[in-house]
Amino acid sequence: MQFEIERIVRTALIEDIGLGDVTTEVTVAIGTVARAELVAKEDFTLAGLGVAAEVFRSLDPDVKFEKIFADGQSVRKGEVLAWLKGKASVLLQGERVALNLLQRMSGIASLTARYVAEVKGTGASIVDTRKTVPGLRALDKYSVRMGGGRNHRIGLFDGVLIKENHIAAAGGIGAAIDRAKQKLPHTLKIEIETRDLTEVEEALNAGADIIMLDNMSLEQIRQGVDLIAGKALVEASGGVNLESVRDIAETGVNIISVGALTHSVMAADISMLFN
Amino acid sequence: MQFEIERIVRTALIEDIGLGDVTTEVTVAIGTVARAELVAKEDFTLAGLGVAAEVFRSLDPDVKFEKIFADGQSVRKGEVLAWLKGKASVLLQGERVALNLLQRMSGIASLTARYVAEVKGTGASIVDTRKTVPGLRALDKYSVRMGGGRNHRIGLFDGVLIKENHIAAAGGIGAAIDRAKQKLPHTLKIEIETRDLTEVEEALNAGADIIMLDNMSLEQIRQGVDLIAGKALVEASGGVNLESVRDIAETGVNIISVGALTHSVMAADISMLFN
Amino acid sequence: MQFEIERIVRTALIEDIGLGDVTTEVTVAIGTVARAELVAKEDFTLAGLGVAAEVFRSLDPDVKFEKIFADGQSVRKGEVLAWLKGKASVLLQGERVALNLLQRMSGIASLTARYVAEVKGTGASIVDTRKTVPGLRALDKYSVRMGGGRNHRIGLFDGVLIKENHIAAAGGIGAAIDRAKQKLPHTLKIEIETRDLTEVEEALNAGADIIMLDNMSLEQIRQGVDLIAGKALVEASGGVNLESVRDIAETGVNIISVGALTHSVMAADISMLFN
Amino acid sequence: MQFEIERIVRTALIEDIGLGDVTTEVTVAIGTVARAELVAKEDFTLAGLGVAAEVFRSLDPDVKFEKIFADGQSVRKGEVLAWLKGKASVLLQGERVALNLLQRMSGIASLTARYVAEVKGTGASIVDTRKTVPGLRALDKYSVRMGGGRNHRIGLFDGVLIKENHIAAAGGIGAAIDRAKQKLPHTLKIEIETRDLTEVEEALNAGADIIMLDNMSLEQIRQGVDLIAGKALVEASGGVNLESVRDIAETGVNIISVGALTHSVMAADISMLFN
Amino acid sequence: MQFEIERIVRTALIEDIGLGDVTTEVTVAIGTVARAELVAKEDFTLAGLGVAAEVFRSLDPDVKFEKIFADGQSVRKGEVLAWLKGKASVLLQGERVALNLLQRMSGIASLTARYVAEVKGTGASIVDTRKTVPGLRALDKYSVRMGGGRNHRIGLFDGVLIKENHIAAAGGIGAAIDRAKQKLPHTLKIEIETRDLTEVEEALNAGADIIMLDNMSLEQIRQGVDLIAGKALVEASGGVNLESVRDIAETGVNIISVGALTHSVMAADISMLFN
Amino acid sequence: MQFEIERIVRTALIEDIGLGDVTTEVTVAIGTVARAELVAKEDFTLAGLGVAAEVFRSLDPDVKFEKIFADGQSVRKGEVLAWLKGKASVLLQGERVALNLLQRMSGIASLTARYVAEVKGTGASIVDTRKTVPGLRALDKYSVRMGGGRNHRIGLFDGVLIKENHIAAAGGIGAAIDRAKQKLPHTLKIEIETRDLTEVEEALNAGADIIMLDNMSLEQIRQGVDLIAGKALVEASGGVNLESVRDIAETGVNIISVGALTHSVMAADISMLFN
Repeated sequence: MQFEIERIVRTALIEDIGLGDVTTEVTVAIGTVARAELVAKEDFTLAGLGVAAEVFRSLDPDVKFEKIFADGQSVRKGEVLAWLKGKASVLLQGERVALNLLQRMSGIASLTARYVAEVKGTGASIVDTRKTVPGLRALDKYSVRMGGGRNHRIGLFDGVLIKENHIAAAGGIGAAIDRAKQKLPHTLKIEIETRDLTEVEEALNAGADIIMLDNMSLEQIRQGVDLIAGKALVEASGGVNLESVRDIAETGVNIISVGALTHSVMAADISMLFN
Repeated sequence: MQFEIERIVRTALIEDIGLGDVTTEVTVAIGTVARAELVAKEDFTLAGLGVAAEVFRSLDPDVKFEKIFADGQSVRKGEVLAWLKGKASVLLQGERVALNLLQRMSGIASLTARYVAEVKGTGASIVDTRKTVPGLRALDKYSVRMGGGRNHRIGLFDGVLIKENHIAAAGGIGAAIDRAKQKLPHTLKIEIETRDLTEVEEALNAGADIIMLDNMSLEQIRQGVDLIAGKALVEASGGVNLESVRDIAETGVNIISVGALTHSVMAADISMLFN
Repeated sequence: MQFEIERIVRTALIEDIGLGDVTTEVTVAIGTVARAELVAKEDFTLAGLGVAAEVFRSLDPDVKFEKIFADGQSVRKGEVLAWLKGKASVLLQGERVALNLLQRMSGIASLTARYVAEVKGTGASIVDTRKTVPGLRALDKYSVRMGGGRNHRIGLFDGVLIKENHIAAAGGIGAAIDRAKQKLPHTLKIEIETRDLTEVEEALNAGADIIMLDNMSLEQIRQGVDLIAGKALVEASGGVNLESVRDIAETGVNIISVGALTHSVMAADISMLFN
Repeated sequence: MQFEIERIVRTALIEDIGLGDVTTEVTVAIGTVARAELVAKEDFTLAGLGVAAEVFRSLDPDVKFEKIFADGQSVRKGEVLAWLKGKASVLLQGERVALNLLQRMSGIASLTARYVAEVKGTGASIVDTRKTVPGLRALDKYSVRMGGGRNHRIGLFDGVLIKENHIAAAGGIGAAIDRAKQKLPHTLKIEIETRDLTEVEEALNAGADIIMLDNMSLEQIRQGVDLIAGKALVEASGGVNLESVRDIAETGVNIISVGALTHSVMAADISMLFN
Repeated sequence: MQFEIERIVRTALIEDIGLGDVTTEVTVAIGTVARAELVAKEDFTLAGLGVAAEVFRSLDPDVKFEKIFADGQSVRKGEVLAWLKGKASVLLQGERVALNLLQRMSGIASLTARYVAEVKGTGASIVDTRKTVPGLRALDKYSVRMGGGRNHRIGLFDGVLIKENHIAAAGGIGAAIDRAKQKLPHTLKIEIETRDLTEVEEALNAGADIIMLDNMSLEQIRQGVDLIAGKALVEASGGVNLESVRDIAETGVNIISVGALTHSVMAADISMLFN
Repeated sequence: MQFEIERIVRTALIEDIGLGDVTTEVTVAIGTVARAELVAKEDFTLAGLGVAAEVFRSLDPDVKFEKIFADGQSVRKGEVLAWLKGKASVLLQGERVALNLLQRMSGIASLTARYVAEVKGTGASIVDTRKTVPGLRALDKYSVRMGGGRNHRIGLFDGVLIKENHIAAAGGIGAAIDRAKQKLPHTLKIEIETRDLTEVEEALNAGADIIMLDNMSLEQIRQGVDLIAGKALVEASGGVNLESVRDIAETGVNIISVGALTHSVMAADISMLFN
């Protein structure tokens, strides 16, 4: 993931700094050294500290960046996450980009951690979706893992998910699964989206590895789990929120996918204080 | 902005599709043509329809994409925003990226529109900040404009904003403004951040073009506006939300900058329906 | 895959043409039009005709490129694969790059087709490996498919293959598989490399989805297949060649992976004849 | 060539690792250190050890890579080519890309060395062609040099080679050579392809610097060499293989170009063993 | 600006070195170390020494580059600007690119310094334009600053300059300025081009921040300055040369923009001497 | 060269336009169509009209660009070079970049044409050097050709030029030439720099293809030409200007290289007039 982080950080810095930080150039004497701290302004689950470090390091390899917490840890309001020392101009120029990344990533980790806490003890895993911010998928999915979630496929290339339109085009659930099993890498499981119990049964008979119960009621999900009876993994999807997720998990599904983890992120509140 | 949109769309498509959409490849016959609609699933202010069109066009220039609404318009739940026709494989491969962009952009426009509506009639402008998603600043700022807001500087390179650390480094407000006026392009206004009325006064005397009142109380803002008395533009910043924004606007400030417009975006609910 | 083909073709053309084809510039009058044919100089399985077309198209969208055969078809010595018409300078400049790609791709497809023919009727699939030419993996793997083979994982990111070193690091086969099942995307099957029947048994007990029998004798493979008895997919790997592949297939393995398909490619003999 | 090696290595690593090596991530504890050796599994001429080192270094500058042999040397089965020490995850992630490059490059060097050995003592040089793998020309041509061969032009931009179609377009051999001499950089020799002795004579009269005898019989080549009599360099091309090359060299030609050096490469057998 | 310098240097080195410096490769033994000096062959104002250092550093981080002068200083014929020590091959390969950049940059700084000297004591600033060499604007504008000049806007994105065609399109000076004030970032001043005193008056009334007097006679400029009377910044533009610039400055304008600073640059005479 | 032109134009447009032309956006109504002409404001030799067309085309393929003159032609003050029609916003956004390129290129062609005219009838060719603007070498060298000059090598990779430091490193002129002849592509001529007649003699004996007489007096050049007597090409270099070039040409040298053609370019005066 290192090359991807480099690409993201470099793109972000060029976007923000362009041909130069005009304010700093005229006010801060070259060579001025500064020290700063990244401080939590609320409680949250941390993600992105390494990426924040990379922001400053890619501006100047001589910046000292000391992590006090690690990604995945819970932090409390007021705690210092890391401290930095380096040229004042570099700290000022990297500040906004580092915070933009760190706040979004921690926001994702924190929301994920809340879902994970809700389903604790049920055996269900919380997973993300492809509803990520374009260009930042690697970081979005990493943040989900830091919050205790797992990842669904990265993109269209590394996982099979046969949806309604694919079924229609292939001429039915059986035909679609069959062709996937014949043609695709044997390393990928075949997942299929179902809308009712009839489809679940068809998918099961066709040998699907994973059966997604899409937008079903709690009752339908329960029946689906019973029907599948361990012969395939069961994924619940659609309309999942913090209120409903526990009930869904208790039906016995294996996987619950939650789009909101990444598509509607509240930035965690973090400041960079110079001292 | 065309080259930037191309870069964003291309990056997003490569991120999502990689070496191929394995599911579609085995289920959808080459040459199958499909028709689909982008449909609003709630009320919101539209932004990003041109970017969505670019997603499909960059996959296949022959896709037909017909816009029914224009960016900046209000749409109602159930309305069709645009319809598309093209190879089924192309519609399926572009769907997620197009929605991810369109939903975020419309989310930003919609939130901006709410802030703009709140300050209606006061003479205050709602502006964004640099708290955007790394790599998408061009789209984030465009979406703010579509919601009726205005843009603050794009980045560190095209606007002067002298903050606390710059003031300290330069040896005071007067010295900092003076150096900016001597050295920087004459085309840029000099903005300075102030924390109390003493600093406001100093900034005014030094000839600042824009004075930011940062994290001040309503009462302080009112006094700041009085003190400045039209001799500089006044920008209120910090702790602005939908509850407080009207009161702030009524103090007579010219500009209100709102980080939340872009750092904590709720995706607008939009679907792509095949028919 | 379109963006990847564009990248490969563009890189290849810049590599070959640089700042210009000095010979053509001084000998061929601007505007001269030519017609040429791509002709098979031996029998082979075709792959890469679309990529060859892209070479000329990316030099000049007005080149006419008419395919007579399709990728995946068998062609005979002397048959015309496609004909082209366009500026003579463009045909001359694209010739070498187009042939370099087409000849390698058809070479891969042809060798794959020979392996596939050998195992016909046995139920075993021929798959490739990651022993591809750096930068051309997408084309190498596509060519394997055109020859009737299937693809193993694209890279380290889209498939789990637990090898000796991973097992040692994780503290045993059971522990390694267990951690993969807990942590990784539920969409990926867990494959593990085994060197003897004891390891096969361990892997089976730990719930591996795919068991690779690495560098085993025919006799060991047979015993492995018996032991696994359909509870996991069986992949044979190591020392596979055209002489041994049928015997291996007849043991009942599901998958046979062959590094030679892509690491030691004989270019198919193809010419471009101007007429 | 450093920037080109960086490009190739980076492209290859991104292609293979993508967003991460999922297997290693879950099985190998962060910080585990490993040691490995690159070992020859057969006799060959070495090329690419520096490129292999670059693979690991670009993943992690702290990897220690100690070369025991140098490019261009002959190595024997069982000899250790280099040893490495570094994070286990880095060694595992770079292994395949390093081997893919090193095996292809050594394969080219080894085949070249065989051709060079065949013509020893004749005064003829073995040179490559533009039949290289797209994107890897720099490495392919370097490997030829390591095998004792010389390079023909890199691409269309740095050498003049007037072929049949150019001659026809220019209106004859004399006219083509004349225009090249008038217009092109004076630093480039003018090479022309001939198919029979009449053309050789024309080329000689027109002042060609290099005359290629294309697909001629041994007897024709001998006559060509006699006719040219040292007034131009003579290059034999077409249908050259390990059986025919000595006879061709003994005709007295200066240069023998061999497409097979790079278009049909057998990978040298090399392993990376962890210890 | 660091990323931009890296881009420029890398592009230039790839352009000049391509796949290798063939002369050095065969004549200079690997490992040969050399020492060289950059020497002024005439008097000039220095700019670009850091960029020259970056050229060698990006070829080899171990090159020692010791600056004796700093950008912005005046140097005399015969003075040594910097000395270098490193691999002979690296010094030879970087020489031309380093000199090409350093000579152009110092040429710009020197010409700027002459203009700045001419207007000394008048209160007018010398500024550049967008007439820079494509791809090098960052360096061109930096060099102007090193010569004592100031920068106009970087590009179309960071400054408002309403010209004749914009005025016509907007429906008059007042309308154009009005729309700019309503819509654009409040951080940018509004500059407008005027051709006569009537337009100056209109611009003043519409509240322009900067009024450009374009191609006006000295007399007109004087009247413009009187009319504006400090209510806007005054910029003189068009037909400025070393002969006319003092007279223009003495009219009391604030800003004089000079296209020739960057569009017609005489390279400063600098050599790299090996010793 | 097409890909290189695309790279240059794209880089230049991004550099100038960034995230948008703020002035045009607020003043020019979307959809406004304009017509403009490129007009010569002085006499010169034209180069770059195709590149200028590419600027507008890459912003909008629908712009109509009609060339009235062709590169390489002489144009007179007042003549219209081309006319354009398209969206007003596109014409305004491309104007500066198109002129910057066209004016520099025509400046180079014009200066070259003056040198070429000076040496008319002497048999000497005027050639350029590597003293080009970094990133624009392809255009600089093309412009020299349009002015009637020829190109020296493009860079270090496509031509051999053995200089003082190479000779010293190789251990003498003979050794250096010998190694170049043994090792380098047979398609490149061997050029060597000489400083006096003794070196000329050594170079001749060693079989140099091209002998550069560097910074020699007219008398020395004459003696060098006599000594070489057609056995190698003779190139005069150093201290060439419009006053001295005819005398140098009349000594009988074949090639005169002139750094000033590209290192100190006066932009040709060209305007874009809207009508």
